[in-house]
Amino acid sequence: MTASFDALREEARSLDRDDPLARFRDEFVFDEDGPLYLDGNSLGRLPKRTAKAVERTVRAEWGSRLVRGWNEGWVDAPRRVGDKLARLLGAGPGEVAVSDATSVNLFKLAVAALRSRPGRKTIVTTSLNFPSDLYVLGGAAELLGGGRRVVAVPARDGIAVEPSDLAAAISEDTALVSLSHVTYRSGFLHDMAAVTALAHAAGALVLWDVSHSAGVVPIDLEASGADLAVGCTYKYLNGGPGSPAFLYVRRALQQALENPIPGWFSRHEPFSFRGDYEPARDLSRFLVGTPPILSFSAAEAGVDLALEAGIFRAREKSVAQGEFLVRLWEALLEPRGVALRSPTEAARRGSHVSFSHPEAFAIDRALTEEMKVIPDFRPPDVIRFGFAPLYTRFEELYVAADRFRRVLDGESWRRYAEAGPAVT
Amino acid sequence: MTASFDALREEARSLDRDDPLARFRDEFVFDEDGPLYLDGNSLGRLPKRTAKAVERTVRAEWGSRLVRGWNEGWVDAPRRVGDKLARLLGAGPGEVAVSDATSVNLFKLAVAALRSRPGRKTIVTTSLNFPSDLYVLGGAAELLGGGRRVVAVPARDGIAVEPSDLAAAISEDTALVSLSHVTYRSGFLHDMAAVTALAHAAGALVLWDVSHSAGVVPIDLEASGADLAVGCTYKYLNGGPGSPAFLYVRRALQQALENPIPGWFSRHEPFSFRGDYEPARDLSRFLVGTPPILSFSAAEAGVDLALEAGIFRAREKSVAQGEFLVRLWEALLEPRGVALRSPTEAARRGSHVSFSHPEAFAIDRALTEEMKVIPDFRPPDVIRFGFAPLYTRFEELYVAADRFRRVLDGESWRRYAEAGPAVT
Repeated sequence: MTASFDALREEARSLDRDDPLARFRDEFVFDEDGPLYLDGNSLGRLPKRTAKAVERTVRAEWGSRLVRGWNEGWVDAPRRVGDKLARLLGAGPGEVAVSDATSVNLFKLAVAALRSRPGRKTIVTTSLNFPSDLYVLGGAAELLGGGRRVVAVPARDGIAVEPSDLAAAISEDTALVSLSHVTYRSGFLHDMAAVTALAHAAGALVLWDVSHSAGVVPIDLEASGADLAVGCTYKYLNGGPGSPAFLYVRRALQQALENPIPGWFSRHEPFSFRGDYEPARDLSRFLVGTPPILSFSAAEAGVDLALEAGIFRAREKSVAQGEFLVRLWEALLEPRGVALRSPTEAARRGSHVSFSHPEAFAIDRALTEEMKVIPDFRPPDVIRFGFAPLYTRFEELYVAADRFRRVLDGESWRRYAEAGPAVT
Repeated sequence: MTASFDALREEARSLDRDDPLARFRDEFVFDEDGPLYLDGNSLGRLPKRTAKAVERTVRAEWGSRLVRGWNEGWVDAPRRVGDKLARLLGAGPGEVAVSDATSVNLFKLAVAALRSRPGRKTIVTTSLNFPSDLYVLGGAAELLGGGRRVVAVPARDGIAVEPSDLAAAISEDTALVSLSHVTYRSGFLHDMAAVTALAHAAGALVLWDVSHSAGVVPIDLEASGADLAVGCTYKYLNGGPGSPAFLYVRRALQQALENPIPGWFSRHEPFSFRGDYEPARDLSRFLVGTPPILSFSAAEAGVDLALEAGIFRAREKSVAQGEFLVRLWEALLEPRGVALRSPTEAARRGSHVSFSHPEAFAIDRALTEEMKVIPDFRPPDVIRFGFAPLYTRFEELYVAADRFRRVLDGESWRRYAEAGPAVT
């Protein structure tokens, strides 16, 4: 058994030596005694350049240029950062804008889609969608009324929803299909092109939440035919806590859909200060208010870094890390009662692997408090290990899995079993 | 004439010497050769403490604590900063939250108000309201349909709207009265208690936008009876470009109104990750998604500074500065064809004074490019001088007015007359 452990560790070191993205780790801030961090799927690490970019925005732009900053780059930030991001999402210039929070963007686009299909009453989603996406879709249906409702297709195994199950739910009454591209709990990766084709065959629009795939899974919004998308920049794009979200509207739809929250930045010629509203003739109509520039500065630096690393190289490493982690699970965790709660095939997974155990909450606490490993816990019984190819090492996956094993072999986790779930 | 100028300058210096808030100027970053800045009503200056606070949030919180930051203060930021802000707004703990952009908050509260008065079809506002507030109110009316519409009471003189004119527009059909407390163009300050009483007498709710008064005019949301309010933190609260906005919902209304954009942070027990939505039982139901923490850090530092200065002392100085500026206008500008476009009584004005001139755009450019004075221009013919009592000196008002005079007495402004309006 020990020999096998050593072999896995040696394999991890070998994979790290051959990693073409290895140099990107040095782009990030690491504390000497910091924890082993496997939660980049929740909040990405701080890039060194970001700390400098934010300081420059605060001191050199706001501090010195004051209101003139709006004419010197700020006012264009939603579209400029969006155009950069478009290159990671398979979208064209003028199809992606950075704005608001993910839920606000989802609301704007869902309401716009529903209003464009007034005769259709159903939004199809799945039980694997992120809870707040379900809230927003439900809120949009309720607000517009007229019998509109959300149908959430259940996952048979709690891990994946097959296109055939979605096909059975999509009908002539479906206005919108809205899914998380990579699901937050199991890491299941939907086939974007296949699902989009199903929706289009029924005359429905498709709205993807790519929060868990942007920056780590190649996305081809244009080629897949996707109509609409939203996502966040604080996971694999390393944009910082609560960094601004983004939205995508296929160019051909931009003039046909209306933003239900018409704001200053969504107006044609916003600085005319006219009292009547005339929507911008392009994607800007889906913006709303003044963008939070300090947070934009961090988001832009993170997007730049992801572009430099390259989305295909990131995916290649992420797939290799997922496969290695599944092998670690087979060797170290499965024998100790830990179940795999992610798809086994790499092609059907994003960049995290989920495990379940009846004592997952207590084990997560023991990992964090005693073993200096930060995964994350999702109630009731899931522990996720996220791997961010720009900074996670294969050896870290080995060490984390081995510490997970040591927690299971010990008794210390029992002291956490009585406490309530944590926020993260 | 020259003697009179000297007397005004000497008076300004005397007022500065006696200014009890003088020491707060040292709390802000000033470039040695920076411009004379009279646009704090658009974007407040950078407080020194803010630069440090943001660096700490980036490096010590995000960089070192990573996702644990959410458990160590971030998740509470919308309510924590809101509770501080409440003390400047005459609201109680649990009545103010920081969240989203002003327009998004206005949308949430306007839709909530309209849905709570389903039999009433009219939103009453004025033509002096900020244009994007008019867009949002119109968008909310259109979205809910059923004949809902916005009635904008015109300002007879372009400067002020009297309660009697509002009273004539408010009826049994009015669901909501929504106004800017201080109007962006003329600086007119509505009588919050009087207008609120008018609305309540007709059974309507009131929603104030206090963007131009928060931090510089004492506001008493509770005592005035106001139901709802929104505002931004980047003007007199010095929160930075596009810093997060806030919302107020009177405690008694919190359970009766529904947020039309139900998100993660608006749910009761958000970290349960349940798929069904249950609104928070308090103000948190009006939050939506993950807050942009870097921008929150700056906003909180700005609010702290405003609390230290004290809202009554800020108002006292602001009133004195407005009165002094009107006297400067009488002495230096009125004789040269500049009209005053703000109320003459200090009690009816916020913290900026507006002037008009047929060549305002070109004059504004000449002031900025040649005279190192930054006021701002609002089309078609208004120049605003904003004074921020925490850092504006009386002598700066003198110098700015004198440079305005020098521009008028020269010819150089003519070279800007052909260019288009600027963004600021």
